[in-house]
Amino acid sequence: MIQTPYLLFLGDAPDALAAKVAQGIRDWRPDNAVGQFRMDGCKADMKLPDMTLAEAKAAGAKTLVIGVANRGGVISQAWKKVLVTALEEGFDLASGLHNLLRDEPDLVAVAAECGRTLHDVRVPSVNYPIADGVKRRGKRVLAVGTDCSVGKMYTGLALDRDMRAAGMKSTFRATGQTGILITGDGIPLDAVVADFMAGSVEWLTPDNDDDHWDVIEGQGSLFHVSFSGVTMALIHGGQPDALILSHEPSRAHMRGLPDYALPSLEVLRDTALPLARVANPACQVVGISVNTQAMEEDEARDYLAGLEQRMGLPATDPFRFGTQKLVKALAAI
Amino acid sequence: MIQTPYLLFLGDAPDALAAKVAQGIRDWRPDNAVGQFRMDGCKADMKLPDMTLAEAKAAGAKTLVIGVANRGGVISQAWKKVLVTALEEGFDLASGLHNLLRDEPDLVAVAAECGRTLHDVRVPSVNYPIADGVKRRGKRVLAVGTDCSVGKMYTGLALDRDMRAAGMKSTFRATGQTGILITGDGIPLDAVVADFMAGSVEWLTPDNDDDHWDVIEGQGSLFHVSFSGVTMALIHGGQPDALILSHEPSRAHMRGLPDYALPSLEVLRDTALPLARVANPACQVVGISVNTQAMEEDEARDYLAGLEQRMGLPATDPFRFGTQKLVKALAAI
Repeated sequence: MIQTPYLLFLGDAPDALAAKVAQGIRDWRPDNAVGQFRMDGCKADMKLPDMTLAEAKAAGAKTLVIGVANRGGVISQAWKKVLVTALEEGFDLASGLHNLLRDEPDLVAVAAECGRTLHDVRVPSVNYPIADGVKRRGKRVLAVGTDCSVGKMYTGLALDRDMRAAGMKSTFRATGQTGILITGDGIPLDAVVADFMAGSVEWLTPDNDDDHWDVIEGQGSLFHVSFSGVTMALIHGGQPDALILSHEPSRAHMRGLPDYALPSLEVLRDTALPLARVANPACQVVGISVNTQAMEEDEARDYLAGLEQRMGLPATDPFRFGTQKLVKALAAI
Repeated sequence: MIQTPYLLFLGDAPDALAAKVAQGIRDWRPDNAVGQFRMDGCKADMKLPDMTLAEAKAAGAKTLVIGVANRGGVISQAWKKVLVTALEEGFDLASGLHNLLRDEPDLVAVAAECGRTLHDVRVPSVNYPIADGVKRRGKRVLAVGTDCSVGKMYTGLALDRDMRAAGMKSTFRATGQTGILITGDGIPLDAVVADFMAGSVEWLTPDNDDDHWDVIEGQGSLFHVSFSGVTMALIHGGQPDALILSHEPSRAHMRGLPDYALPSLEVLRDTALPLARVANPACQVVGISVNTQAMEEDEARDYLAGLEQRMGLPATDPFRFGTQKLVKALAAI
């Protein structure tokens, strides 16, 4: 568990895209960020107060989160002075970069000396159990995609926000590094050892109130041959009561696999639902989330209306048109 | 390489299935096992001479192989005294458990002191790639099970032996610790990090002659919620041309999961084949292998004949009745 609130470190981000982790925190957990720290030449701006380390400390910040990615995911030498000073001034550090904070001897030494914690959210910090498949109390919803990177995390974060706004009990359960940094907790599922994947998802989504929803962040796709095993572990470890089908209609082929076509939403439904019912016989497909950013607004509305007729399920673009239809479907379970 | 012959350590195995590592060595490399070492309460029996460490040493044993698996793969404290004494008496140790011999400080210290070697065959020794899904030359067959531990490895080892005896080109591709201990090569798939599972299977089964068969050792089951992600990675990384359905008809529930019923062979076929065709559209289900050890021979013959009629596929118990029907089906592809 990463201590909040954060100071968001934007470093020398060359553009806004390089700071997408910080943007995710700003968009979804604004209360977790007291300010931003920018170095000379930084081209990203979260529209948060610019703060020195001392100012952020005075404002209550506990952790400096690296909210920016260099090319190659490395920890820039240009950042080191700030990171070392932050540890000395009492901040923990958190990072989702490929290169780990714990592999930097200077950071390890200063952190040990100052009693601070280095959080590398790409690597598991828990010895997860093997899944036992025992039915857990509470409800769970999982987005499954026709492909990777079709908007499953966005759908989950939007659902969680809107379900809580509607007075429902909900917790977003992060399964990737961006989600973990946004919420301060979760499992880095793609870095978990095979035998413990489903167990880590069970661990993440324990017994809860009967009317509480875990909104589990989806990963990969049953139809993406590189990562389908990860998706399978989410479906069986998560025991979802509800599945949401996620799709990006402009995709010409599976992400990174030019010889693989995307499945239809019908094939996704007919594949994922029977597999989900192995772990939870009551599981239902409750709706469809579509990333329509490649369409004009009228075109997107027509596409979603056509999908609703074709599939007999509520369909929305959570970013463009909100999640109300999906929240309503979940509230009815 | 692991020094042979072995003394097979069965520990306090709670049942015969827990000792499947030892059973595999006993059945496929009997010349490598001079005897077995059993502790009080051991419920497994390889029908080998029970030996003390000193007796095994006198009989020429070089390595004590841990032939038993606890749930979770831990090194039991109850075993430690035997393992330490074995090192002191001049044995190497070999293990396929998740918890590594090399992570046990007492074993490491005694091994160093006595000049002995600790073999952890489960530890990945390669940085596997992420799967790219590119079609590979040569043919591949994979056994998929209604449950874990229903005879998939046996089916593969017998097929490999019998295909080579029939003049076909075949290589058994081990994916678990038993297969690795038997063949000396393979991937410890259940210890591979999630993102690289399918890539490790691609790495294991590279381009080959058009008429060469990789007989890929199956793992887990699509219907076993603890390990289904591993099975999924085998199906997509392996790109099988042929699937064999594996079953154990006396099983009352999924192994270790008392609340989970086994699927029918029809449901297994209808689940596994469409998933396999994502990676290899030409994939076929070619036959059924059944572990009939709980049946009398007449009963087993009747059961298999009924299955052949019901499923329209050749069905055999490879251990009891040979693999000829399956070899013939594969030769026809």
